[in-house]
Amino acid sequence: MRMVDIIAKKRDGKELTKEEIEFFIKGYTNGDIPDYQASSFAMATYFQDMTDNERAYLTMAMVESGDQIDLSNIEGIKVDKHSTGGVGDTTTLVLAPLVAALDVPVAKMSGRGLGHTGGTIDKLEAVNGFHVEITEDEFINLVNKDKVAVIGQTGNLTPADKKLYGLRDVTGTVNSIPLIASSIMSKKIAAGADAIVLDVKTGAGAFMKTIEDSELLAHAMVKIGNNVGRNTMAIISDMSQPLGRAIGNGLEVKEAIETLKGEGPEDLNELVLTLGSQMVVLAKKANTLEEAREKLQEVIKNGKALEKFRVFLENQGGDGSVVDDVTKLPQAKYTFEVEAQESGYVSNIVADEIGVASMLLGAGRATKDDIIDLAVGLVLNKKVGDKVEKGESLVTIYANQEDVKNVKDKILKNITVSDKQVVPTLIHKVITD
Amino acid sequence: MRMVDIIAKKRDGKELTKEEIEFFIKGYTNGDIPDYQASSFAMATYFQDMTDNERAYLTMAMVESGDQIDLSNIEGIKVDKHSTGGVGDTTTLVLAPLVAALDVPVAKMSGRGLGHTGGTIDKLEAVNGFHVEITEDEFINLVNKDKVAVIGQTGNLTPADKKLYGLRDVTGTVNSIPLIASSIMSKKIAAGADAIVLDVKTGAGAFMKTIEDSELLAHAMVKIGNNVGRNTMAIISDMSQPLGRAIGNGLEVKEAIETLKGEGPEDLNELVLTLGSQMVVLAKKANTLEEAREKLQEVIKNGKALEKFRVFLENQGGDGSVVDDVTKLPQAKYTFEVEAQESGYVSNIVADEIGVASMLLGAGRATKDDIIDLAVGLVLNKKVGDKVEKGESLVTIYANQEDVKNVKDKILKNITVSDKQVVPTLIHKVITD
Repeated sequence: MRMVDIIAKKRDGKELTKEEIEFFIKGYTNGDIPDYQASSFAMATYFQDMTDNERAYLTMAMVESGDQIDLSNIEGIKVDKHSTGGVGDTTTLVLAPLVAALDVPVAKMSGRGLGHTGGTIDKLEAVNGFHVEITEDEFINLVNKDKVAVIGQTGNLTPADKKLYGLRDVTGTVNSIPLIASSIMSKKIAAGADAIVLDVKTGAGAFMKTIEDSELLAHAMVKIGNNVGRNTMAIISDMSQPLGRAIGNGLEVKEAIETLKGEGPEDLNELVLTLGSQMVVLAKKANTLEEAREKLQEVIKNGKALEKFRVFLENQGGDGSVVDDVTKLPQAKYTFEVEAQESGYVSNIVADEIGVASMLLGAGRATKDDIIDLAVGLVLNKKVGDKVEKGESLVTIYANQEDVKNVKDKILKNITVSDKQVVPTLIHKVITD
Repeated sequence: MRMVDIIAKKRDGKELTKEEIEFFIKGYTNGDIPDYQASSFAMATYFQDMTDNERAYLTMAMVESGDQIDLSNIEGIKVDKHSTGGVGDTTTLVLAPLVAALDVPVAKMSGRGLGHTGGTIDKLEAVNGFHVEITEDEFINLVNKDKVAVIGQTGNLTPADKKLYGLRDVTGTVNSIPLIASSIMSKKIAAGADAIVLDVKTGAGAFMKTIEDSELLAHAMVKIGNNVGRNTMAIISDMSQPLGRAIGNGLEVKEAIETLKGEGPEDLNELVLTLGSQMVVLAKKANTLEEAREKLQEVIKNGKALEKFRVFLENQGGDGSVVDDVTKLPQAKYTFEVEAQESGYVSNIVADEIGVASMLLGAGRATKDDIIDLAVGLVLNKKVGDKVEKGESLVTIYANQEDVKNVKDKILKNITVSDKQVVPTLIHKVITD
């Protein structure tokens, strides 16, 4: 078998066999196949797409290129959730204890990563004492006992995907549905997921800018999942403005606690119930999405969800009393209000740029070695569609620095107030097959 | 400027600027742009093609990537001819003295190369004493004095093309019209051509298998030539069987001498007159192709073409008397006849494979270090369309070895005799703009 023939076959629009795709991924992972052949293959794939079979083979070949997490000692169906990026996304913090309260096992492997705020682990570390330095055995025992635990990323998962993703980034081949879909799915499967729920973000602040592209990607991933024996569902949700109100690590934990009490922002609450329902159904703890939603609302109402969060935090060394008293979270020294310059309706909030404003305060990492300030961030007092009077606060800045002029300027530049009221749609689509 | 943006622009079907194409070629030549970006760009070009402007920019950027031969001290319009490969192609040997006899300056830079027979220089070395080790000054003086000389390849011509061609070969991006056309044209222009005649071969033995593809390539090259100020014409000629009758170095010199006397094979004679007419018109030594053809026939008839060959050989140390006595060419020890196994009409001669048969005798190089036997080769006694009786000779083998069983077998396997007479077309198309 020669890679040049596999490239030519893809270029000519013929379907590759399992063996051919495995030959490529194995050879590329171990260095036998050079970058220049992989990039030419990726560009041919960009133009010729892949069939459902090819996508499934590619996903599993990438899963098999490295370590795979074995969660078979955890009872029940392990459902993982993945969001395709976004700004101010607090969903994981809420979802983990929420579905665990319905006995859905949540064995979360998470990272720190770069971005506007920290990763899930950084956020959780805003709770005094919480840590993810636990052994795999402890991790599995915790999930079996209390249904939820978080561990740092371990092992060499999907090295083929890491290598290929780095290459695609510099060869104009990122935006290929089969390559994006197999990349995301391979990581979830290698991390041990039995079933997968996908939150595909759409809009200016998201990777996929149009609903059509988001739908293509969502369907592609659901199909791959079902073809390789992992039940998968997806939603397409709006990321034309930040989700919820808080952007910042400690601030998002506070928002998560409020949401678990049923007092969170409307959009975050709705998104969590939608995604949570899919997780509960896939874990076979409810027969329909409606039944699942009712059960989730029930555990919010009766306090079980919040209680689960407390137990989860305490299991990993954290101060669980934070759920009763959010002032125990890191507090910023200063607050500043960003006042509306005119009256009208908020018609646009550029999610990306608001994220950057929060990063300027120290809430996120631009490079791997940056240290995150867990106390700082932003709270949006107005969201798209809200009425605002001149002089009213659009955003509250939580800072440990006195001079926030650059942050204020960036926020004002990226929130539009106009005469006409726009009502945004949060959930564009629910995809169950 | 970033290469990844240039790749994405080509991928999205937008026209690249001169500066962008120069950025790519300069960066790729000096190693700033890695192979993996060049191959992804080549694949994007395979799918999105290039506009006429882009093709011209690419060609000139490759010309400027290395040395350029300065032929400005040679009087007159220097016309170069290029064939896109083939088997038993003796045209250069005939054309050079033929058009020089009409005062068209032929300043030929030639190579040895790999293949079924040697390159033009190898063939000419079958003439005792002939050599190409002359200085550039001697070369220019010879062309000015007698209108024809041949020199070995010198300088670092079109390094960008060499590098890119090597990469395309292993990344499934060879068959791209804009890339093939700019590759060929850049080499001719860097070698100093003022005007160019192209012989695009078509059929089983050629690089382009269909007439449609050959036409696309021919038009692409003619357009590039005219867009960068080099008048260019082309023909599409048949390579479904070997050209002429001789395949082998000394044998082809003999055939060239016969053709210069007007006694050559019909197809070779016709091809030489067609290409020669274009060369004469481009050199402005005739106003029309018809007038040029008459003039060429005239110098064949009156012996001036043959005389020019003698002078050319003697100018470069060769024994010119070979034109009077072809037995002075290297002679093989043995001859063998390959007899027809049945009666009928020759309906197919697989050019490629007959070429390989000649290589088995030692007429060509498989690797750079192989030594060529100038005496050996094949002469086709029958060509497609000829009637043949069982037992008649199809091919005469000229060998320096006693055992030629493998050669005979290969020849018989690749010549088809059938009931129906097929009459091949030699010149499929003449393209003058």
